[in-house]
Amino acid sequence: MAEAENILPVAGIKLASIAAGIKKNGGDDLVVLSIDENSNCAATFTRNAFCAAPVTLSKKHLSQQPPRALLINSGNANAGTGDLGMKNAEQSCVWLAEVLHCLPEQVLPFSTGVIGEQLPMNVMQSGISQIATALSEDNWLTAAKGIMTTDTVEKAVSKTLLLDDRKITISGIAKGSGMICPNMATMLSFIATDADVESAFLQQCLSGAVEDSFNAITVDGDTSTNDACVLISTGKAGNKQIDSNSADAAVFIAELSTLCLHLAQAIVRDAEGATKFVTVSVTQAQSKAEAKNVAYTIAHSPLVKTALFASDPNWGRILAAVGRSGIEQLDISGVSIFLGEVCIVRNGGIDSDYTEEKGQAVMNQHEISIAVELSRGSESATIWTSDLSHEYVRINSEYRS
Amino acid sequence: MAEAENILPVAGIKLASIAAGIKKNGGDDLVVLSIDENSNCAATFTRNAFCAAPVTLSKKHLSQQPPRALLINSGNANAGTGDLGMKNAEQSCVWLAEVLHCLPEQVLPFSTGVIGEQLPMNVMQSGISQIATALSEDNWLTAAKGIMTTDTVEKAVSKTLLLDDRKITISGIAKGSGMICPNMATMLSFIATDADVESAFLQQCLSGAVEDSFNAITVDGDTSTNDACVLISTGKAGNKQIDSNSADAAVFIAELSTLCLHLAQAIVRDAEGATKFVTVSVTQAQSKAEAKNVAYTIAHSPLVKTALFASDPNWGRILAAVGRSGIEQLDISGVSIFLGEVCIVRNGGIDSDYTEEKGQAVMNQHEISIAVELSRGSESATIWTSDLSHEYVRINSEYRS
Repeated sequence: MAEAENILPVAGIKLASIAAGIKKNGGDDLVVLSIDENSNCAATFTRNAFCAAPVTLSKKHLSQQPPRALLINSGNANAGTGDLGMKNAEQSCVWLAEVLHCLPEQVLPFSTGVIGEQLPMNVMQSGISQIATALSEDNWLTAAKGIMTTDTVEKAVSKTLLLDDRKITISGIAKGSGMICPNMATMLSFIATDADVESAFLQQCLSGAVEDSFNAITVDGDTSTNDACVLISTGKAGNKQIDSNSADAAVFIAELSTLCLHLAQAIVRDAEGATKFVTVSVTQAQSKAEAKNVAYTIAHSPLVKTALFASDPNWGRILAAVGRSGIEQLDISGVSIFLGEVCIVRNGGIDSDYTEEKGQAVMNQHEISIAVELSRGSESATIWTSDLSHEYVRINSEYRS
Repeated sequence: MAEAENILPVAGIKLASIAAGIKKNGGDDLVVLSIDENSNCAATFTRNAFCAAPVTLSKKHLSQQPPRALLINSGNANAGTGDLGMKNAEQSCVWLAEVLHCLPEQVLPFSTGVIGEQLPMNVMQSGISQIATALSEDNWLTAAKGIMTTDTVEKAVSKTLLLDDRKITISGIAKGSGMICPNMATMLSFIATDADVESAFLQQCLSGAVEDSFNAITVDGDTSTNDACVLISTGKAGNKQIDSNSADAAVFIAELSTLCLHLAQAIVRDAEGATKFVTVSVTQAQSKAEAKNVAYTIAHSPLVKTALFASDPNWGRILAAVGRSGIEQLDISGVSIFLGEVCIVRNGGIDSDYTEEKGQAVMNQHEISIAVELSRGSESATIWTSDLSHEYVRINSEYRS
């Protein structure tokens, strides 16, 4: 994507990406993002109970020290690796801390790749020893490539805005080719801004933006063991520190949310085997959770996903997914369903103006929206997903062979 | 299957199956099962809020009169068809009641096939007018064929037992090629016994048997709009009526449960595109619901299902599914996972004796079991599922073309 090549440096952040030898194909597989002192850092992590060693260790380090570096390897998830996996993650942090002259607790480790294999520690050690000299403010794009696994394109984007008369940059990279594909892709995203943002507010901004972006996409519903998203504020722009009471708070949240949504949608567009980009919106729900539940039930249905792949306006499958989503006392006479601009179901029954030709015209498009009105309240949710193709089955049945 | 051809008649039940002209391929598509007077009847229906017109009408008729006939059509689900769909279901019952000299409320209608098309009422009328003369006690196997849609084999089985010194027969048929495929297959099952079983106890037996059979299988997680299971007791065997206090109650429940499980497993074996038959057992859970939830999370994971298709012992995908199943405060150090007899995860980490060769040997088999121990309690659940193959995507993306 053109945005990726236009990614901008962020004062206070340096990056390096090298081919250490973890990936069998010889691609870049070790990335370091170094953070200047006095920066703030927020993060969100996977809710999978079987979270990987680096996730557990990053959470612990974050609670101890302000981070000075992120250490990211691709090609190996260091998940399901037991005590040795944790020792290896700790040792990797020790090595990078020696190189960067910081504490091991100031290094946050991240891993993505195959589950259940131990990190190749000789390769890690030699890679980490070389990486310091490669650090540069201009390496965002190479870092975006270095964290890829089955991704086919790098995902990177920048936003600039004026806050307090200072030019502010927010840059972010992400990887992931299923929303979360535990054995191979896993979603990771690293975002930095030179804005000065108060620490608690930074976390609040990130949690809100993630909820409506990375937590609103699905390829296959498989939440990974390694997901993480990190947001760093270096404060180098020299603006007056932003907190929840600042006049600029809303602008910063809006730009950050737009950036996260861009990266999240880039993951869905690059989803394994995807031929369609699908937006599912549910409105008039009693709660946001209810709206998201209905949307995810549609987005996870293999029957809906194969119909999307086939460009088949098989609306009965959407209707059946809404019906089985488990809403208490759903009055179907209040439910309407739209495919693009075309109403397929109105008040619980097929719309009298619906024709197969109208539905087919929408389904033939590459980008498709499905909208459901529940007539139960005023809450809503939108999520993004892909279709289920022959290629998805091929990729995921041949992955380790 | 050999069992299907050995299906036994049940005194008090006659069946007929004809090609009325609803299916485009000319196959049988209209089945009637007539029930002698003084029989008892129990039923369970889909929980999909968008349930089809015949489901709504069958529930209503059951509450009004003891049924004298089941009227089943394949090739058209009469779902998502609004007020006209309901009128058509009612009219069909009126026509059959005239032929069989009973009340319209004594006819229970069932439909399976494509959603969203109206029943061809001229075809229904002419079919129903012909069917009475075709009724016979010996038509169980042809009825099993007549209710099929995308099924590739008929599903039928009989059990015989001695109760109160009387020989009792239970015979049942089922259809379904996904657990529930709202646009085409939908699960239906019709079971009858000549035993005399008290009405409330009959419903209790059916609900219990269905919970651990038809409600414990999944192909794609898509609960249909048309699912139904009916159990009829004609009482013609002349045994002393069985109720919940009878000495014979446990024997009857056990035989009925075995029969339901046989039919349910036959549906999974005939699942769309299936190449594997997979048993998922979860033990040591705090509740049966918790155990079922973990089992279904594994069984619905597209990544687990594609690994099964590929015969790939990719145990990280199973571990990740357990981890994301949403159990509160899951202590992963208590979790063990087995593939067949092979322990892959012990106490939260990879088992020290595990080798890829051992895992591969299990995965190469056609029938595979996955067992999870949670170390949280004493409840358990077992469900059955299939893999996700190229053929599944082909069938479901080409269905209407």
